[in-house]
Amino acid sequence: MRVALDAARLGPRGANPLVGAVVVGPDGGVLHVGHHRGAGTPHAEVDAIRQAQAAGTDLQACSMVVTLEPCNHTGRTGPCAQAILAAGIPRVVHAARDTTAASGGAATLRAAGVQVEDGLMAEQATELNHRWIMAQQQRRPFVTVKTAQTLDGRIAAADGTSQWITGAAAREHAHSIRARVEAIVVGTGTVLADDPRLTVRHQAAAAPDATAPDATPDPPADPAPLRVAMGHRCVPAAARMRGTDGRFRHLNTRDPRAALTQLYDDGVRHALVEGGATVVGAFLEADLADELTIYQAPMILGAGRSSFPNLGIHTLGQARRYRADVSDGGALHHLGDDLLWHLEPQPHTLTNRQENH
Amino acid sequence: MRVALDAARLGPRGANPLVGAVVVGPDGGVLHVGHHRGAGTPHAEVDAIRQAQAAGTDLQACSMVVTLEPCNHTGRTGPCAQAILAAGIPRVVHAARDTTAASGGAATLRAAGVQVEDGLMAEQATELNHRWIMAQQQRRPFVTVKTAQTLDGRIAAADGTSQWITGAAAREHAHSIRARVEAIVVGTGTVLADDPRLTVRHQAAAAPDATAPDATPDPPADPAPLRVAMGHRCVPAAARMRGTDGRFRHLNTRDPRAALTQLYDDGVRHALVEGGATVVGAFLEADLADELTIYQAPMILGAGRSSFPNLGIHTLGQARRYRADVSDGGALHHLGDDLLWHLEPQPHTLTNRQENH
Repeated sequence: MRVALDAARLGPRGANPLVGAVVVGPDGGVLHVGHHRGAGTPHAEVDAIRQAQAAGTDLQACSMVVTLEPCNHTGRTGPCAQAILAAGIPRVVHAARDTTAASGGAATLRAAGVQVEDGLMAEQATELNHRWIMAQQQRRPFVTVKTAQTLDGRIAAADGTSQWITGAAAREHAHSIRARVEAIVVGTGTVLADDPRLTVRHQAAAAPDATAPDATPDPPADPAPLRVAMGHRCVPAAARMRGTDGRFRHLNTRDPRAALTQLYDDGVRHALVEGGATVVGAFLEADLADELTIYQAPMILGAGRSSFPNLGIHTLGQARRYRADVSDGGALHHLGDDLLWHLEPQPHTLTNRQENH
Repeated sequence: MRVALDAARLGPRGANPLVGAVVVGPDGGVLHVGHHRGAGTPHAEVDAIRQAQAAGTDLQACSMVVTLEPCNHTGRTGPCAQAILAAGIPRVVHAARDTTAASGGAATLRAAGVQVEDGLMAEQATELNHRWIMAQQQRRPFVTVKTAQTLDGRIAAADGTSQWITGAAAREHAHSIRARVEAIVVGTGTVLADDPRLTVRHQAAAAPDATAPDATPDPPADPAPLRVAMGHRCVPAAARMRGTDGRFRHLNTRDPRAALTQLYDDGVRHALVEGGATVVGAFLEADLADELTIYQAPMILGAGRSSFPNLGIHTLGQARRYRADVSDGGALHHLGDDLLWHLEPQPHTLTNRQENH
């Protein structure tokens, strides 16, 4: 299960949880290790099964160890419970139970005669996805908040100039995140100030599996992410983010929870909030920022717009605290001269959440 | 010379330049690699010679390759030119020439019959120490600026609380820098607000050579760094930084250049500027911050004191730009949950400086 958990951490945060799966041989040895690489790509179990089949492993003599109860529903990929049955794997050990709409996989497997054990290292597996589980329970998209700032936390100089604070590598990375979400959200103030396009400029390079050595063929191209303006101000008819593909939305609200409800009803399971500071602050204050990606450039402005607005924090003990996000290769990445912080909120609500189970 | 330059980068910035030295055998192979580990420790040449002598290498059959002209003066350590002569090394290749008061080593060696070549990769060697060379030319201490801030560049919350933004590992690292400077500078405003002690609490752990595998015995303990209050406001008689050891100074000026001149006359060759933002900003504006160490904690305050003050920067093109400092193990270090940025100013004045040579 430790191997499976380590594999799970290789995946990116998003619409789906981080899951790892291991095919274990009759002698208990690790034969194949799979993980989930983001929405639209094979689930961890299928990833591991495909590796086993490609290698000619006799799966009927093996067990599968997986960090989450195999799913039971057909989404963009088929149900894993059926894939396990089809592969003939006689024994499954999973950690956390699936409490979402996709649950029921264990029961399906048991009904078909598979030996299923659960609960092994369930706490660690749950911890790994605690923000994703929270989003599921709240029936809202998982939210990634992105900002690009200077060393002193500025997102624009005094005169409003902000292109470019970060370099090409950081901007390309940001586009790779856009490529895997279903909605990109900015405030109407940002629309008026910067007139962003919110398109995915490096889509080909950013496909989830493009660089994985064991890449499966890419699924059919998804529609472009929704381009969402949030706030009460009008979006000009000529705003570039309107585009011509019908993927523009204006959510006439300042309430991030209301915005997320509308996006969820529109099918969005992973949203990227790009700014400005007011919108970012609203998501932070409502504890609706599940993941932070902060690009930071080694420059100092000393003045200009701050990356985060006043959050009503008066004293140090009230500071919003984050921790390294273990997914997607770890917490810190060099991107040219810039740095990427990859953070998630300290799980202060974990106890409450677990009690709600 | 590449090996010597790489070794030089292992040292810390400070009162002395980064220097690496390599003992090369008769067949051109690298036998021993030395570098300088900070003020009061052996120079790179001596470090390499000691290794050679400990290994029984016949130095009379070897050459020495060093990134800077061997020094000719007795400071806290003896002159390297004499050490090379005493070791009987018949040939020295150095990169940059020493243009400081310690120069003349090459002439001393030549006069004693040593074959000396210079200029190999001199540009890279000069680049490595360009801020140190600038400080030497200006007859002022080398200046390290330190700040500890949140993700959004705050050094204190709205109510002034700032203990502790960073964790124990970052604070210990900061003390290791204090341990190798000769003066710690704060503004009088910081004295009144925070009443800092400015002592070195982890001196034993922070001695320059304590963790080096080939550590030489520590030199006799240096006096504590000067504790310097800078600015026009009065320092209370009960201020903790006054101490009882006569190492307190009040520099009644807001001009960083004037302050550095006084410190230089007081024997200070490496000063650490710790804040507050006003003092830090004065050093940045005067281009007198040679090295930046920024500790950054994964928390957001959204309000409170900023790490850097208004520097009169209006538009992005005027931003102060920094680059990774290659010394002391590289640009970024994890310190517990916190991050250390180790930066130096982009060398925009390099061309001018070289023309002055």
